[in-house]
Amino acid sequence: MNAPTHPDHLLPQLNLRAVPQAMIDALKARFGERCSTALVVREQHGRDESSFAAPPPSAVVFAESTADVADAVKLAAQYQVPVIPFGVGTSLEGHLLAVQGGISMDVSRMNRVLSINAEDLTVTVQPGVTRKQLNEEVKSTGLFFPIDPGADATLGGMSATRASGTNAVRYGTMRENVLALEVVTASGEVIRTGTRAKKSSAGYDLTRLMVGSEGTLGVITEVTVKLYPLPEAISAAVCSFPSIEAAVRTTIEVIQMGVPIARVELIDHNTVRMVNAHSKLGLREEPMLLMEFHGSPSSVKEQAELVQELASGHGGNAFEWASTPEERTRLWTARHNAYFAAIQSRPGCRAISTDTCVPISRLADCLLESVAEVDASGIPYFLVGHVGDGNFHFGYLIDPDKPEERVVAEGLNHKLVTRALALEGTCTGEHGVGLHKMDFLVTETGNGAVNMMRTIKRALDPLNIMNPGKIFTL
Amino acid sequence: MNAPTHPDHLLPQLNLRAVPQAMIDALKARFGERCSTALVVREQHGRDESSFAAPPPSAVVFAESTADVADAVKLAAQYQVPVIPFGVGTSLEGHLLAVQGGISMDVSRMNRVLSINAEDLTVTVQPGVTRKQLNEEVKSTGLFFPIDPGADATLGGMSATRASGTNAVRYGTMRENVLALEVVTASGEVIRTGTRAKKSSAGYDLTRLMVGSEGTLGVITEVTVKLYPLPEAISAAVCSFPSIEAAVRTTIEVIQMGVPIARVELIDHNTVRMVNAHSKLGLREEPMLLMEFHGSPSSVKEQAELVQELASGHGGNAFEWASTPEERTRLWTARHNAYFAAIQSRPGCRAISTDTCVPISRLADCLLESVAEVDASGIPYFLVGHVGDGNFHFGYLIDPDKPEERVVAEGLNHKLVTRALALEGTCTGEHGVGLHKMDFLVTETGNGAVNMMRTIKRALDPLNIMNPGKIFTL
Repeated sequence: MNAPTHPDHLLPQLNLRAVPQAMIDALKARFGERCSTALVVREQHGRDESSFAAPPPSAVVFAESTADVADAVKLAAQYQVPVIPFGVGTSLEGHLLAVQGGISMDVSRMNRVLSINAEDLTVTVQPGVTRKQLNEEVKSTGLFFPIDPGADATLGGMSATRASGTNAVRYGTMRENVLALEVVTASGEVIRTGTRAKKSSAGYDLTRLMVGSEGTLGVITEVTVKLYPLPEAISAAVCSFPSIEAAVRTTIEVIQMGVPIARVELIDHNTVRMVNAHSKLGLREEPMLLMEFHGSPSSVKEQAELVQELASGHGGNAFEWASTPEERTRLWTARHNAYFAAIQSRPGCRAISTDTCVPISRLADCLLESVAEVDASGIPYFLVGHVGDGNFHFGYLIDPDKPEERVVAEGLNHKLVTRALALEGTCTGEHGVGLHKMDFLVTETGNGAVNMMRTIKRALDPLNIMNPGKIFTL
Repeated sequence: MNAPTHPDHLLPQLNLRAVPQAMIDALKARFGERCSTALVVREQHGRDESSFAAPPPSAVVFAESTADVADAVKLAAQYQVPVIPFGVGTSLEGHLLAVQGGISMDVSRMNRVLSINAEDLTVTVQPGVTRKQLNEEVKSTGLFFPIDPGADATLGGMSATRASGTNAVRYGTMRENVLALEVVTASGEVIRTGTRAKKSSAGYDLTRLMVGSEGTLGVITEVTVKLYPLPEAISAAVCSFPSIEAAVRTTIEVIQMGVPIARVELIDHNTVRMVNAHSKLGLREEPMLLMEFHGSPSSVKEQAELVQELASGHGGNAFEWASTPEERTRLWTARHNAYFAAIQSRPGCRAISTDTCVPISRLADCLLESVAEVDASGIPYFLVGHVGDGNFHFGYLIDPDKPEERVVAEGLNHKLVTRALALEGTCTGEHGVGLHKMDFLVTETGNGAVNMMRTIKRALDPLNIMNPGKIFTL
């Protein structure tokens, strides 16, 4: 999801470490103008799309190569100063905030596609390449990169947060799609994790240890991901339902029957109204599923017929088709803009996003009880979901001038997460832990597992300089 | 692959640690007859399907619960004695050998399916459940577990080695299919990694750190894996080709076009001859692909027609269909028995297996040059491959009484691995590193990455008691 930046909630748990002037001098000597201490630059790098705020980092280094990153990290290790990797700033969970001080390592200029191996369906990119840029650059090969978290995030950031989004139901998440990484470790060493082979049993899976580590174990400087042949046929459809429950129960059946649907997104009636107003669409203002089918023409037809049949069984209307690429793009852009549409619906508001994910059979219970709770609270909200994966997002639209609304919203989120965990789900399907879910992580996985994470962190980053204070406290 | 046990190659790098009598006494007191020191039991647990040998472990504990495992590991930690997890002994790389002494932790009696969640397509099992047992127990739900390494291995062992096999080209490996684990750590603590949610961004991916860790970070005591709806239609076919190259080039095109083929296995003409003799089949003694297609009837038909067209372009014959379930089972059993068939073709021989995996575009180069080398060496061999993944296995059939043949075989493997790594592949697609590929691992991934693995190992197992001496030396 996209979101405007609006740091308005100062974190209580700041633990600022000083950045010595000697370190700033050394960075300036090494990087010249590519090390900035201008307040406006620091402030831009000291926030993300979460609603938290902290003092900005002491400096921003604009890396243009792996050697740049390694040199900056070596200096940071020498002066024991935190390093916070920064792509394009779309984190929703406070990953980018300098809660322990330090420097921001901006890799957005490392934005080259290094090698397209179309025959192997792989591509290697620098971490600052965004997903839209990547798809633009591989378009002529007939391949595409499916992971789509909404925001035009960087591949480095998507790897670091184990991102996914609308296509994950068919193509998996960054967990399944990253083949190998180059990483600058906490000591400034450059390592490679994995090869371009599709599978391997060669030692510990360092690739997947780094994917989702939120910058706390190293800076990702190269990413090799899988590509997929553009489907011969793509069809997108909208289906309205008499209730959220009907839409959710249809989705559950679609998944349980193994239909290889490429996208199946829930939007509640309220959010459809917001989207209509924002994107000038004339969608029926009822709960709906936005779907996309990929495959051969006959396979797409077969999938769509089966899903239509299942939907009809729950009172779903006839599919409305977005048959041209332009109509499809318009529909998905509207979906991705649901966040902005919602924000506009309550001028001056802030959104607090949830991110639970549950096993598909628990989806109706988890979602419907939570909808009832939010409705009862009186807080305006939007609701969208990658429901084929059991993952959905509420956005509680709070007035930042009314602290009591934030308290209510956080209380709703707490109840939602507690419910999701009781249903064998997770507190975060795709946004990451960051600052916001550290307590939930312990509840979800237990002290034993979190302590194992801490042990790994201490071993690989003994000075605690890699994005410290995220995922867990040490 | 299955293989008879034949330890005949004593390892030079033994580093035996004594197991104090007090520890044996403590184990006997805790486990009674479920702790055995009988030589025959120890010898059975001191070898696997590799061709290595080492003195057997000092005792074998037959665990029946997670608490059993935890208690035994706590005693091992107290006495600083190695613990080697053991399922059904099908490792091919020496994982089960007590190269540093210690005890074998047999989990084969932990063989209960704990919960089938058919609605979520997940199942949780104890680590001693084998893949065939699992498929038998979930059959009535209309679901199946696709990972098929040939041998009827345990889910614990398959997790520990990141196993895959014939279906991985469509369904992925254990990496993609394990959702969560319960693990007894090196201190005897019980932790859980992950939930039943299909995706998650909740902290470090401990599940995938454990998958493929070969028993060196803990003992797996529960495994939650994905299941899949049994396809509406399944068709298996055999296609003969004028050359290995023609079969491989067909496979490359199938993968590059994104055909969702469920299995595509190469068998060379020589191995077909062995399989015919062993399994009384009348297969044409030419290089061939064994294929399987899963999907709706029309999708299966469409896939098969497309692959037939691609095969014909390379001189492939008309598909011969195994249309009944019985014929299919017969065909795949014959494939899985290729190892035994090969062993029988040279009475008294031993097989040394290779396991390289390369990006699909490099498969022809890697395979054909290696075939030429083996042919030139005069060593008899078999050749089978999960070629859709770029993974294939030579089995060099050596006479154990002729050490010079082992030298030639290891030399061939060395050349093969060197070639695969130069082609951006891996030294092990699915068997693991074990004892055999420690040097190759360093060549493949570099000292930096292997040192990171060592750092993690030292942090999580400071006494070095969890299957020490495997993957890397400390």
